[in-house]
Amino acid sequence: MSSIGIVSPQSMHFAAPLKLQSGAQLADYTLVYETYGTLNAERSNAVLVCHALNASHHVAGMYVGDPKSVGWWNNMVGPGKPLDTERFFVIGVNNLGSCFGSTGPMHRNPATGNPYGAAFPVVTVEDWVAAQARLADALGIEQFAAVMGGSLGGMQALAWSMMYPARLRHCMVIASTPKLSAQNIAFNDVARQAILSDPDYRGGDFYAHGVVPKNGLRVARMVGHITYLSNDDMAEKFGRKLRNAAATADYKFDFGIDFEIESYLRYQGDKFSEYFDANTYLLITKALDYFDPARAFDGDLKAALANTEAEFFVASFSTDWRFAPERSREIVQALVSNRRRVTYAEIDAPHGHDAFLLEDARYMNMVRAYYQRIWDATPGKEQA
Amino acid sequence: MSSIGIVSPQSMHFAAPLKLQSGAQLADYTLVYETYGTLNAERSNAVLVCHALNASHHVAGMYVGDPKSVGWWNNMVGPGKPLDTERFFVIGVNNLGSCFGSTGPMHRNPATGNPYGAAFPVVTVEDWVAAQARLADALGIEQFAAVMGGSLGGMQALAWSMMYPARLRHCMVIASTPKLSAQNIAFNDVARQAILSDPDYRGGDFYAHGVVPKNGLRVARMVGHITYLSNDDMAEKFGRKLRNAAATADYKFDFGIDFEIESYLRYQGDKFSEYFDANTYLLITKALDYFDPARAFDGDLKAALANTEAEFFVASFSTDWRFAPERSREIVQALVSNRRRVTYAEIDAPHGHDAFLLEDARYMNMVRAYYQRIWDATPGKEQA
Repeated sequence: MSSIGIVSPQSMHFAAPLKLQSGAQLADYTLVYETYGTLNAERSNAVLVCHALNASHHVAGMYVGDPKSVGWWNNMVGPGKPLDTERFFVIGVNNLGSCFGSTGPMHRNPATGNPYGAAFPVVTVEDWVAAQARLADALGIEQFAAVMGGSLGGMQALAWSMMYPARLRHCMVIASTPKLSAQNIAFNDVARQAILSDPDYRGGDFYAHGVVPKNGLRVARMVGHITYLSNDDMAEKFGRKLRNAAATADYKFDFGIDFEIESYLRYQGDKFSEYFDANTYLLITKALDYFDPARAFDGDLKAALANTEAEFFVASFSTDWRFAPERSREIVQALVSNRRRVTYAEIDAPHGHDAFLLEDARYMNMVRAYYQRIWDATPGKEQA
Repeated sequence: MSSIGIVSPQSMHFAAPLKLQSGAQLADYTLVYETYGTLNAERSNAVLVCHALNASHHVAGMYVGDPKSVGWWNNMVGPGKPLDTERFFVIGVNNLGSCFGSTGPMHRNPATGNPYGAAFPVVTVEDWVAAQARLADALGIEQFAAVMGGSLGGMQALAWSMMYPARLRHCMVIASTPKLSAQNIAFNDVARQAILSDPDYRGGDFYAHGVVPKNGLRVARMVGHITYLSNDDMAEKFGRKLRNAAATADYKFDFGIDFEIESYLRYQGDKFSEYFDANTYLLITKALDYFDPARAFDGDLKAALANTEAEFFVASFSTDWRFAPERSREIVQALVSNRRRVTYAEIDAPHGHDAFLLEDARYMNMVRAYYQRIWDATPGKEQA
């Protein structure tokens, strides 16, 4: 099992306008993507990997001259890895509205000549999937062996199975949910309010002012990060450890840092505010909030999934309180009611929501075994 | 069962300096308090009620001409109520550092002549209790029938039992914890960072600038509020209801308010930022973070509670994820190991942490029954 090595992103421009769920449209747009492995002659071995909140098309491998630039799912995707790039042709694509290359708020709005800023249209999971489908068209991929994602990425996989039932043989939905709860939305709104009320947000046009709403982004990331970790894991890793580990250390009796957990979270927040775009954060939290495929069916998830054709792999993690196992079970139940073939894994893992990104033998083995099954049934695989 | 009627706050000035846990001292200070009922001749029927984060000395009754000014535990304290003011002499006291009357950051710092602002010393639960004990001295109360509190108020009750073991016959600790978890601290730090990074905080001296860090306070309150409610309760009350309840209502595709839960939280945040002091919020979250009586005993809560003499009433609520029942059970276990007499109630209630403030027949009956027991054993009660 080796790493995928040096990769480089590609981009594709789409000149035809994209009509969005909101009614708005993007006149044209660019998607940035990466591919790993080789598309076979039958074009039957393609796997689309959808990214979550703060990730991108850079799923695996690293960029030349930058050994730290390892892809976000490098433990999952590569030669001999659970999603084996010696078998599958894997595509990672950056979503619209992102700040990592695909058309987003920091890009030029053709209508004004200035950056979109807050005028970038609110995009949904379904909009992303529609844009991804055009990329698949352009790459000549009529049907994916699998579409796979964790968290918000899992929502995209689920949306694929409903919007383009014939275009994927397997749908892999990990640590996800059929819709956000009130509590999920509440945390997202805290993050949004932190950003929107930062004076440096400047109504979304901060680019023109040479400022960045770092304080807002920082708080947004801190609160988000708490929801990614499990209570137990946080207790174990940080507990009430003081940052100053000396045995004689005492409380500092000021508003600086006393506890390790404060240091960790502030560091995460600071780092995030250095590279992430505030408008993108707002857009992505809205895409999360709006995702609710059962909504058009009076809340009936079974009805929403009735026209799916894929086989499903659904996985959840015991200590994930952001999208708890119950939420995955809702999906499984709706699929089973539709007599779809479903593999469901509820993995006992300590790392909360973040577990879907982390090394865990049981989890990785489940995914590996599932891809083995996909591979065994892949038409024309010998030609790869 | 009637309400307690019109009440009015009193205040007491303490000219002797108060040495604080931090090593700093307050040269002098004032405590604002209210009393309900009548102290009996034996001075044996006094109950101290300690307040939590955003409450005050105004526990019950209302102020003249302001029928909306109902005390925060008016359902608990009054004639014929669980804590019956026809039997007990109840004291509510505002803590040091608060913004509701007792000496706090907005008051004049005798060292500078200006408001304390961020220079107000960081106070701890133990500091509050020491100040409360002086008030008890001044009121001639040598021993309380009970000291009682919920959440942060419960920590004060617990501290009373350790700091002044002979001064309370009963210690009532509701919806509380022997110490904050990493996750608890993390949420507090998000709130602090939201306030500290608001440009209107001005290093704590916003009073002099005629501004208030409302945005920071608002976000702080929003995130705090999420932790007071249970996930289930939020799902039931708000779910994914849109604020515009029309059947044809659709998402708004902007960063305004789509969901009821957003409207509710923003309203709570706005309201809070109108009346609460930012420096007080910082101070109180630090008092929460620092509370850890077992710390001086190498983490051994049993040892910390070894010198207590009171009988204990401990209660927790099934859906409270801020201070979950496990946290109360830690207290109970340490007390039982010390062979203390403990009544423990784990109440199955849907309302999360906030349950300790709300009407719930089982909860109220438990408290009522416990006070009946206290009353039955109150020396000299016939004279009341």
